[in-house]
Amino acid sequence: MKVGILGGGQLARMMAQAGIPLGCEFVFLDPKADACAGQLGELVVAEWEDASALDRLSACDRITCDFENVPATVLERLADAGHPVRPAANAFAAAQDRLTEKRLFESLDIEVAPFAPVSGRTDLLDALDRIGYPALLKTRRMGYDGKGQYLLRTPEDLEPAWAELGDHELILEGWVDFDFECAITVVRNAEGEMRCYPLSRTVHADGMLRLAAAPANVDAGLRERAEACGRLLAEHLDYVGCLTLELFVAGDRILGNEFAPRVHNSAHWTIEGAVCSQFENHIRAVCDLPLGATALRAPALMFNWIGAMPSTDALLNVPDLHWHDYGKQSRPGRKVGHATLLAETWPALVPVALELKEDLPQPLDRLLDKLVSI
Amino acid sequence: MKVGILGGGQLARMMAQAGIPLGCEFVFLDPKADACAGQLGELVVAEWEDASALDRLSACDRITCDFENVPATVLERLADAGHPVRPAANAFAAAQDRLTEKRLFESLDIEVAPFAPVSGRTDLLDALDRIGYPALLKTRRMGYDGKGQYLLRTPEDLEPAWAELGDHELILEGWVDFDFECAITVVRNAEGEMRCYPLSRTVHADGMLRLAAAPANVDAGLRERAEACGRLLAEHLDYVGCLTLELFVAGDRILGNEFAPRVHNSAHWTIEGAVCSQFENHIRAVCDLPLGATALRAPALMFNWIGAMPSTDALLNVPDLHWHDYGKQSRPGRKVGHATLLAETWPALVPVALELKEDLPQPLDRLLDKLVSI
Repeated sequence: MKVGILGGGQLARMMAQAGIPLGCEFVFLDPKADACAGQLGELVVAEWEDASALDRLSACDRITCDFENVPATVLERLADAGHPVRPAANAFAAAQDRLTEKRLFESLDIEVAPFAPVSGRTDLLDALDRIGYPALLKTRRMGYDGKGQYLLRTPEDLEPAWAELGDHELILEGWVDFDFECAITVVRNAEGEMRCYPLSRTVHADGMLRLAAAPANVDAGLRERAEACGRLLAEHLDYVGCLTLELFVAGDRILGNEFAPRVHNSAHWTIEGAVCSQFENHIRAVCDLPLGATALRAPALMFNWIGAMPSTDALLNVPDLHWHDYGKQSRPGRKVGHATLLAETWPALVPVALELKEDLPQPLDRLLDKLVSI
Repeated sequence: MKVGILGGGQLARMMAQAGIPLGCEFVFLDPKADACAGQLGELVVAEWEDASALDRLSACDRITCDFENVPATVLERLADAGHPVRPAANAFAAAQDRLTEKRLFESLDIEVAPFAPVSGRTDLLDALDRIGYPALLKTRRMGYDGKGQYLLRTPEDLEPAWAELGDHELILEGWVDFDFECAITVVRNAEGEMRCYPLSRTVHADGMLRLAAAPANVDAGLRERAEACGRLLAEHLDYVGCLTLELFVAGDRILGNEFAPRVHNSAHWTIEGAVCSQFENHIRAVCDLPLGATALRAPALMFNWIGAMPSTDALLNVPDLHWHDYGKQSRPGRKVGHATLLAETWPALVPVALELKEDLPQPLDRLLDKLVSI
């Protein structure tokens, strides 16, 4: 089966790595000539709306995405022309606008932080009156990895925030003083069958995911509520493929932060840590193959490599540490790879992880403490 | 690191699948334009001795092989020109001639079945006098997957065997009435560090491997002797990469049958069943990266798909069954894919395997009984 992917980054690359053993071939559309998925299939270098590029994707049996900001209109056009686009444009439309997304969560009774749309300074002041400081001012569209956000701690932050973001459509969100963050990944097929992966704990810094661990070691009630939120969302969107919902946990509250209509960094650990990875299950769902088992194979801890790959000398010597170099050029703030450490139990994993501290790039060494105590 | 592979079949394909996450890029040289590894790198279509094709391989940082019958002279020429060829030509020279191979085993005190070189009818009759019936008449060179062999059961088989094989250099081997077959895979790096994978049990039919299981469930003494044979061989050859030695077990005797200077079908189960697969460890050794752990992750049973891929409908529904479609056209006798079933214990694996019987192509359903009782 031939699968076309809008976007040719590391997510497309790992989907292809999982899909090739299933007998799939891949075509990637990406504006960047050095898109790293190109090593695993045909790379069509073009803008998202390029008609002849989309014609080449249309020749595929299935079309999916590795990037949530592919214009939903492009996906609609492909679907209207009869091409199976999975997940469909509605999921992208919902995820691409933070206001729509928050309202969707509310409509599904998924608790969210207080929020308000901001179309001008007056809106912002009104919203701050209601929500209070600290609060996050965010662009409604095109935000990812912490881009397009400004934390308002005091009224003094207003001017620089407005200078940076004021010419976009915005949303103000109340700051959530969370205990920890987690993420639930659900896979759903075209017949409506759904499976949840074990809940992941995640740690962010500077708006980017840095570490993820599974299982999340939360009580069963919390886990079930997180799964229910993920399932509700997938069901409501009539979603096909893997979807991840990022959640804040504050006391006994669980709040929806955002969701991604694609495979997600918080579940990269599933490549080795689950029976069937999120990448394989996404491709299985998209291609109408039976869904794979989402059960945990072994407790897992994932390190994101951001900016540059660390040296392999020490890290590749660690038994049961699995290496993922995305084949990308180094650049500050760029996700260039990850590694996943497994062990038979979480208590067995912790000392191995702590021993790695001196070989981990900043700030992972410091952030590790947030996870090893779970 | 850029790795050139002589041969672009499924072994090269799986080496690339394992090596790409390590940051490697691949160039394959193969006489066939549809060589299935081409999906994962640059495919140079040319004969083994084609000078300009070899120049393109020479631009790689490392050179290795997916096929034991690449002319050893080609590997020597590349090495003489200063290119790092791993494993080196000596291993291929030894494996390509069954007579050299058997004498090598003898020199290392690895027991072998009685054998004799056969250069003419007189030799054959003399050898049969000494070795007796049944015996296998084999071409010394270019044999694999049961090709170039004739089983002599009685003197009446002499004429047809001679008509088929008489114009080759031959070897006569005494028939080994073995209890079972197994295979030991060793990885060795350039510094001489060696690691053994758990011993695999193998089942052949019509000269081709059909099933493999690990661990082999043999007593520790036998396992240690098998490992010692593999290590001796790798050490003697100053070998770099993965090597597999196929063995017969008859009572308390363990006999060397043949070895392959490459990754091997009997260890495909290591992709999911071992901590670090034979493919990844071969690439690690070839690229001077630290060796990975060869420990068992879970008991594994591998099914070879020969001729055509079976339907995915039933088989992909089996939890912890892992699919490997090589992307090859169907053709009788051709290895087109495999699947590996894992379970936490062998007793837990057996009933799952037996339930698959009706979905397994002939003769796997029948052969399965040879393994499930181990």
